[in-house]
Amino acid sequence: MVAVDGARLWRDLMDIAKIGATSRGGSHRLALTDTDKRARDRFAFWCEEAGLTITRDEMGSMFARREGRNPELPPIIVGSHLDTQPLGGRFDGVYGVLAALEAIRSLDREGIATDHPIEVVNWTNEEGSRFSPATMASGVAAGAWGLEETLARTDKDGVSVGDALQSIGEAGTRPARLSPPHAYLEIHIEQGPVLEAEGLPLGVVEGARGQVWYNLSITGTEAHAGAAAMNLRRDALAAAAEIISMVEKFALIEHPDAVGTVGSIKASPNSPNVVPGKVDLTVEFRAFDHDALRRLDGHFRAGLEDVARRRSVAIEHEVSMRTDPVSFDPSLVDALADAAESAHIPYRRMASGAGHDACRIAAIAPAAMLFIPCVGGLSHNEAEEITPAWAEAGARALTLGILAADRLDFIAFAD
Amino acid sequence: MVAVDGARLWRDLMDIAKIGATSRGGSHRLALTDTDKRARDRFAFWCEEAGLTITRDEMGSMFARREGRNPELPPIIVGSHLDTQPLGGRFDGVYGVLAALEAIRSLDREGIATDHPIEVVNWTNEEGSRFSPATMASGVAAGAWGLEETLARTDKDGVSVGDALQSIGEAGTRPARLSPPHAYLEIHIEQGPVLEAEGLPLGVVEGARGQVWYNLSITGTEAHAGAAAMNLRRDALAAAAEIISMVEKFALIEHPDAVGTVGSIKASPNSPNVVPGKVDLTVEFRAFDHDALRRLDGHFRAGLEDVARRRSVAIEHEVSMRTDPVSFDPSLVDALADAAESAHIPYRRMASGAGHDACRIAAIAPAAMLFIPCVGGLSHNEAEEITPAWAEAGARALTLGILAADRLDFIAFAD
Repeated sequence: MVAVDGARLWRDLMDIAKIGATSRGGSHRLALTDTDKRARDRFAFWCEEAGLTITRDEMGSMFARREGRNPELPPIIVGSHLDTQPLGGRFDGVYGVLAALEAIRSLDREGIATDHPIEVVNWTNEEGSRFSPATMASGVAAGAWGLEETLARTDKDGVSVGDALQSIGEAGTRPARLSPPHAYLEIHIEQGPVLEAEGLPLGVVEGARGQVWYNLSITGTEAHAGAAAMNLRRDALAAAAEIISMVEKFALIEHPDAVGTVGSIKASPNSPNVVPGKVDLTVEFRAFDHDALRRLDGHFRAGLEDVARRRSVAIEHEVSMRTDPVSFDPSLVDALADAAESAHIPYRRMASGAGHDACRIAAIAPAAMLFIPCVGGLSHNEAEEITPAWAEAGARALTLGILAADRLDFIAFAD
Repeated sequence: MVAVDGARLWRDLMDIAKIGATSRGGSHRLALTDTDKRARDRFAFWCEEAGLTITRDEMGSMFARREGRNPELPPIIVGSHLDTQPLGGRFDGVYGVLAALEAIRSLDREGIATDHPIEVVNWTNEEGSRFSPATMASGVAAGAWGLEETLARTDKDGVSVGDALQSIGEAGTRPARLSPPHAYLEIHIEQGPVLEAEGLPLGVVEGARGQVWYNLSITGTEAHAGAAAMNLRRDALAAAAEIISMVEKFALIEHPDAVGTVGSIKASPNSPNVVPGKVDLTVEFRAFDHDALRRLDGHFRAGLEDVARRRSVAIEHEVSMRTDPVSFDPSLVDALADAAESAHIPYRRMASGAGHDACRIAAIAPAAMLFIPCVGGLSHNEAEEITPAWAEAGARALTLGILAADRLDFIAFAD
């Protein structure tokens, strides 16, 4: 049985957490910023210390390679991301990268070779906070969108992904479009309350919610808040309020299959005594069921037309991201479950509410995920918390999962 | 009959409009910024050119004095403000300052002396956009709030009013608490559609809506937008949406007496795939009727408690401003109406929906206002527009109003 060094893994997690630490115990490392760069450098240092060879692709994603007995075989890729939300926690993404590194170290310690090479990956900009969309680099890797258009995307200050990559020196030459690996594995905190509530240290993830994201722009008429009569107003924020309530209502109707969120809003001119003339907001729906997602999309668009007509405001909307519900590779999922079973790690099969880089790579290769619990289900929150015991059990399951994947002979992959 | 130089007045208006001009034809001159300073300098230059003596008070408000036959008499103060909304128009405030200056020039040209000194005032920060509250300096002048607390107020970057005054060199030594003037007059664009719709060039303003402004802070729980189940969320933005709709509904119930507005909103962390954990917003109600304003305040507070309880969010609220409905001095209002009548300027008596510096000064001295029309009732909007003919007629009425006020012998003033 392979042992992992849980103390070392925890020390590494706490060490990275110092980079971009927030006053309330969280992490602030937006993609391709200087703090992201410092976390990348720390990760690269540890990889080199472990004898791994690092390459970077055109999107700046980092691949730290441990050679296989047969270097000609496609690699097993294992990892997640080091970037965080503006006020994120210390474990979302980071845990998956460092657990993968600890898995490699464990194989080294035990003197275990694999047939397939193993690459630990740190995907650029999984969060999608500074640059939209989320799972940006894994999306390019899987061909969900193109490299050129993605490099041209800009943050709110007008800085492009390409320029940001150059400015921190993380643009590589390995093609961003990924050659299908033998298998892709990712371990992540659950970001929900189920595992903790059931007292289980591990989830074997069978699939993930589909998503549709919209950017909305509502245009009404700026007016003096004291003089403009209520019945003559074209108040863009009052229209936005109706839309926010509508998103919540539609998602509640599809509960528990679906969720719906307005996460970001910007009103203009955003002055206390001016009726807002313009509001931009983001809307997203997620559902496990294809049909539920289609219903939400349809009702939402009809609702926007209704609000626009009744309030005489213009509402532009664009779909900024759309992903179908994902089913992970059944044989890989079974192999992960068997590995947990054989190591006597209690687990349950479950689905992911959130999107992950694994959902992207699932389009081009056998992919699956493991979850560990997080306290209170909190994530995308500075108070995000896990225990060292959970971290260690997860890394052990991941190590065994890598070995199981190495032995698997996948039937020809088709999504 | 006194003639005013309408061409000169229009040239001055267009000249100031170049300072902080926006691409869509509006003005961006937030209080105590460098652009505000440039407008102040231009105004000071013209005042000195007209032989006026400028003093600045501790709040940076500028008073340009034309001596009276009896310098011992309290002055007639006439003016408005040069600061604008973030995306404001070219006439809100500015017109009132420059029309007052043009009135003085007209008296000079005609060789007319007044018994009382006349002071043209530019009040600091009427708009309340950069620093809250609105009518900041006239509020200090009238004793609505204190000087020290006001100088300590900060903008969103943490810069205080006091520091901003120092940095543009506009802090003066004249006491910010104003000695009651003989009378206060202010001319302003209507910021509503009534005068234009009725084809009248002038409004004689009898009073203004009372106001109550709130700062709200809603605290829920940040959560992952994909993983957090709808029924377990404490979404601060969904709570805010309910409040925005509630403000609109309550104001509509009191239509046409009242208006209600949420002008400014800030969500945190404001990331597309994070359920917002915190939202700050501003709310205001205005009404002509005391009782309507009291009802709105009461219903709103009860509504906040209801939202907080149902959604398990914390809602803190503070009243950032409260003013009673204002009735201007009846004898001064009558004198303005008589002056318009004798000059054959068609007018109507009306009330102001918006607050103005005049509403503050009305607490310590006889005060009244004149309105000129604005196109489509638009204000607090880059498209704000007036005609040169309206500007000239207003300045003429103001000049006559000053002369009428000079002759008035007010019965002991009591609010």
